[in-house]
Amino acid sequence: MVLARVVGTVVSSHKARKIDGIKFLLLEKIDPVSMNGKGDFVVSMDSVGAGVGEIVFYVSGSSARYTDVTEGKPSDSAVVAIVDFIEKDGVYTYQKSGN
Amino acid sequence: MVLARVVGTVVSSHKARKIDGIKFLLLEKIDPVSMNGKGDFVVSMDSVGAGVGEIVFYVSGSSARYTDVTEGKPSDSAVVAIVDFIEKDGVYTYQKSGN
Amino acid sequence: MVLARVVGTVVSSHKARKIDGIKFLLLEKIDPVSMNGKGDFVVSMDSVGAGVGEIVFYVSGSSARYTDVTEGKPSDSAVVAIVDFIEKDGVYTYQKSGN
Amino acid sequence: MVLARVVGTVVSSHKARKIDGIKFLLLEKIDPVSMNGKGDFVVSMDSVGAGVGEIVFYVSGSSARYTDVTEGKPSDSAVVAIVDFIEKDGVYTYQKSGN
Amino acid sequence: MVLARVVGTVVSSHKARKIDGIKFLLLEKIDPVSMNGKGDFVVSMDSVGAGVGEIVFYVSGSSARYTDVTEGKPSDSAVVAIVDFIEKDGVYTYQKSGN
Repeated sequence: MVLARVVGTVVSSHKARKIDGIKFLLLEKIDPVSMNGKGDFVVSMDSVGAGVGEIVFYVSGSSARYTDVTEGKPSDSAVVAIVDFIEKDGVYTYQKSGN
Repeated sequence: MVLARVVGTVVSSHKARKIDGIKFLLLEKIDPVSMNGKGDFVVSMDSVGAGVGEIVFYVSGSSARYTDVTEGKPSDSAVVAIVDFIEKDGVYTYQKSGN
Repeated sequence: MVLARVVGTVVSSHKARKIDGIKFLLLEKIDPVSMNGKGDFVVSMDSVGAGVGEIVFYVSGSSARYTDVTEGKPSDSAVVAIVDFIEKDGVYTYQKSGN
Repeated sequence: MVLARVVGTVVSSHKARKIDGIKFLLLEKIDPVSMNGKGDFVVSMDSVGAGVGEIVFYVSGSSARYTDVTEGKPSDSAVVAIVDFIEKDGVYTYQKSGN
Repeated sequence: MVLARVVGTVVSSHKARKIDGIKFLLLEKIDPVSMNGKGDFVVSMDSVGAGVGEIVFYVSGSSARYTDVTEGKPSDSAVVAIVDFIEKDGVYTYQKSGN
């Protein structure tokens, strides 16, 4: 899975029938040490109610069809977790505010 | 899924039997902030009637066989949505004309 | 799918039982605007009788097992179309000779 | 499979139902000659009890659902082996301490 | 499939149950024109008895589970052929010694 920040949304009224009603999040991949964005973006289907600004990880490929929201749908990216904290070599590089 | 602009078409009269009758779009991946093309191209099967100049997103891998058009076919890329708008950090980076 | 030029062949007498009798093409990925090779190569299983010099596109991943030739075989790349022409922004960047 | 060093963990309390109870490891890909980290990170589901500092290899894509821990789950990366040693051109580039 | 040279082996005593008894080869991807290594390595499961120094090609993704050795196993890379020769634009860039 890959770590990313939710930076926005993508809206489409004209799309494949099967993905009607799914929320499309715009994600920017991050470096989990500096927590900086990498300028590399992906559109991901939300399965956890993630909001703009949150750090998440998403699953790619066929496994993006294995969430309750995306089962059997043409999806190659699904957000599967909102991150509370990231710990690297004994140090927190990220803690969600409120945690 | 990945954001791209439809920039053309690819035509083949000699191809695998199963992909007969499918439209092959030439897509250029875009940066969703500047909306500039990245000079990186992919051939994608159309499942939504997308036209040249439109901003779309496409699905890669096995999920490219999960649209009504591409089911069971040797496809690794299918356009699944025509984008109306992209919103990043509260600002529209793209709005389809007429929206 | 990705556009490439057939530049050669790869021959193996010692291989997985299931891929006996399949032709392995050496492909060089191309830029579909300049039509120049990118110096990036892949070995792809032929499902359409493509020959050296032809422009083709190939399918990657699990869909490479969905042609009549590669069904059920350990293949992650299969040539599925010989390209007649590529049109970008209203201009032909490629036309097969004889077309 | 790809070689990596376990450098930390990622914790999420809000995630897809199916991945409850799985440990998420933060991996840094390594060069197997110098054994240096590449600054390229992935979140991987643990199937072998790997700990921080260990050299492992992980499986990507649909096969990340084929371990006893990850079967049927939305996973695109699973640690499947803790490495004892790496031998390249007759020389050990890595030996686990204690081996 | 991707061309590579077998450069070594990776040994693990602690691994996912299903991959017990499989040989893990360390491969270095090569440029098929110069035949030079690219400094890019992958761990691949052997299905053909390949040895150090040999030029092979391997299959990635779900198809890495389609050899007789790797069926149903958590594998994303399997060596499926030992290469005898590579021919590019009418010239051999590689011939196995003894061929």
